[in-house]
Amino acid sequence: MKFSIQRDRLIQSVQDVMKAISPRTTIPILTGIKITATSEGVTLTGSDSDVSIESFIPNEEDGNQLVEIFTPGGIVLQAKFFSEIVKKLPMDTIEIEVINQLQTVIRSGKSEFNLNGLDPEEYPHLPQVSEENVIKIPTDILKNLTRQTVFAVSTSETRPILTGVNWKVDSGNLTCIATDSHRLAMRSAAIEYTNDADYNIVIPGKSLNELNKILDDTSEPVEIVITENQILFKAKHLLFFSRLLEGNYPDTSRLIPTESKTDLVINTKEFLQAIDRASLLAREGRNPNVVKLTTLNSGIIEISSNTPEVGKVIEQVQSESIDGEDLKISFSAKYMMDALKALEGFEIRISFTGAMRPFIIHPINDESILQLILPVRTY
Amino acid sequence: MKFSIQRDRLIQSVQDVMKAISPRTTIPILTGIKITATSEGVTLTGSDSDVSIESFIPNEEDGNQLVEIFTPGGIVLQAKFFSEIVKKLPMDTIEIEVINQLQTVIRSGKSEFNLNGLDPEEYPHLPQVSEENVIKIPTDILKNLTRQTVFAVSTSETRPILTGVNWKVDSGNLTCIATDSHRLAMRSAAIEYTNDADYNIVIPGKSLNELNKILDDTSEPVEIVITENQILFKAKHLLFFSRLLEGNYPDTSRLIPTESKTDLVINTKEFLQAIDRASLLAREGRNPNVVKLTTLNSGIIEISSNTPEVGKVIEQVQSESIDGEDLKISFSAKYMMDALKALEGFEIRISFTGAMRPFIIHPINDESILQLILPVRTY
Repeated sequence: MKFSIQRDRLIQSVQDVMKAISPRTTIPILTGIKITATSEGVTLTGSDSDVSIESFIPNEEDGNQLVEIFTPGGIVLQAKFFSEIVKKLPMDTIEIEVINQLQTVIRSGKSEFNLNGLDPEEYPHLPQVSEENVIKIPTDILKNLTRQTVFAVSTSETRPILTGVNWKVDSGNLTCIATDSHRLAMRSAAIEYTNDADYNIVIPGKSLNELNKILDDTSEPVEIVITENQILFKAKHLLFFSRLLEGNYPDTSRLIPTESKTDLVINTKEFLQAIDRASLLAREGRNPNVVKLTTLNSGIIEISSNTPEVGKVIEQVQSESIDGEDLKISFSAKYMMDALKALEGFEIRISFTGAMRPFIIHPINDESILQLILPVRTY
Repeated sequence: MKFSIQRDRLIQSVQDVMKAISPRTTIPILTGIKITATSEGVTLTGSDSDVSIESFIPNEEDGNQLVEIFTPGGIVLQAKFFSEIVKKLPMDTIEIEVINQLQTVIRSGKSEFNLNGLDPEEYPHLPQVSEENVIKIPTDILKNLTRQTVFAVSTSETRPILTGVNWKVDSGNLTCIATDSHRLAMRSAAIEYTNDADYNIVIPGKSLNELNKILDDTSEPVEIVITENQILFKAKHLLFFSRLLEGNYPDTSRLIPTESKTDLVINTKEFLQAIDRASLLAREGRNPNVVKLTTLNSGIIEISSNTPEVGKVIEQVQSESIDGEDLKISFSAKYMMDALKALEGFEIRISFTGAMRPFIIHPINDESILQLILPVRTY
């Protein structure tokens, strides 16, 4: 194998595939990046066996030569060293050559590295995914779907299924649901697909977080293929595979209240900042991070917290409207702030059905996003 | 006590005095910021008993009103909470009032915090420093003196005196010296002083690092007063006290070679980048982080490292000149990079007296800065 390649483009691809590589893997070859040179260009692969990422750099793009292949072939190089080396090489072009079996020389200007490589034949094969049923979603919408739901997955392994995001594909619609059993985030969007198969799968939250870091902010579609235990996302020059979580995701539809007793319409940003400040003194004590919301006259709501050892805080926010019963309710400031950040830019409606019942937050006039939070009982 | 104050200016002063506050202090009141309002303005104080910082905000500056005092007085507020609260308050103006003994109300817009304060009478007094002998140094030169030396202090407490920077004031000159016994950094500069007293003191490296973060980048002079166990730095609206280290600093002058056998003139940046790359593979093995320098023909120097398990790297750098004997020498890449970063922007001369002797690095034609490094014996 011997080729030369544009450094900046190589750095970008290395950063992308590094997202799949874990230094704590128990399979030694997976600490490496697999590099394959063919007549079309160079492919990099990284994997931790849960997530695998493949990034392709073509010989030429938009009239610019990115790669020149002298001899096709492959090698696996230690990701930790290879990624730092390419970042620090002095010239715009890098030459990579395998000499003497697995010895690999990396040259740029007057700099020459000689790395011990590993045999690419020993690198695990990526899952084979048949591409019959393809779902298409614009990249920016997919990123929003993830951003507005994935924060609500469970971080505890007591119920592993809750560490994933539930995807339901049905009648031209994708619904994403995440819950840690104290709060729930849901978002749906229309999708395009080549077949009317329905799906109900659970994607690890960690995979979706990594995918969101790699995808460009573009309206170009991502193609998605779902198999029994894998999901593949295909973007330009990029393949992202993730295993799916096994097991049945709980039915969350019955958790969501359908009526309300108190309805609040409020500016998201002002409300978020007031909650943020009210939580400053609420770190310690019996109910860490819990704030209290009280409706007052004239559409004013009060957010407060009190930790006797430290002090107390009272915030007043003018709402657009308060309809229905007066209310005093306590909840986690963190959960509320996470939900409000997912709804940033919207004016929101919060619908309560009493101090001890879950409440829901929607953008006004938009039922495609829903955030649900369970209140906290305070004594 | 009651006053109103511009939020941005308060945030800046709080950040400055926070540099002296340690959450791990054993003296509870020192986890607080002391706030004092007088007819002239507001003074904030933070201290960990080694370093004390006082920041003053005057009622008015450049025609802008910064503070309005309603009732003079004082309070001590928990630094952790107070600093986060002022950062997040909604309006440009903040009102602070002590009610009911030590209860303190902080108001801004519709936000109201009520903090439990501590008695300012119990806050330790700052050292009394008589201002007879004042040394003046432009702020930017003081910051450079520190930046170019303080990184070389010892981080180990086995010889506590080496965790400080030795300041020698003599004949209108200040010399700063730091060493951890493997390398040494020295820089001198002319100073202005009102008295011809000589000093030989040791300032904790930690204090100088904090001071450098607070001082503005300006050519305005800093006034310095040295007493038996304290040093005071006075800048605009700022007092910075540090205790001095006790004990005698070793005489380092005899460590510095006065002759050389090989002299190298080289571009700092190219040399630094080559060392940086050569060190990438030198992390593990018998001599962690050690690289080898070899003089070749035609003014070329080679930087290399070799870790059999990982691979090897060879860098070539074209020097301006090599005079004297051929040389092979090994040294810590980290020490060399620290020294080169302190000399950034200069063309440098490196003077060697053989592979096992300390070598020195100067900017060419500037004897006021010196970096010394002990080589490493490799087998």
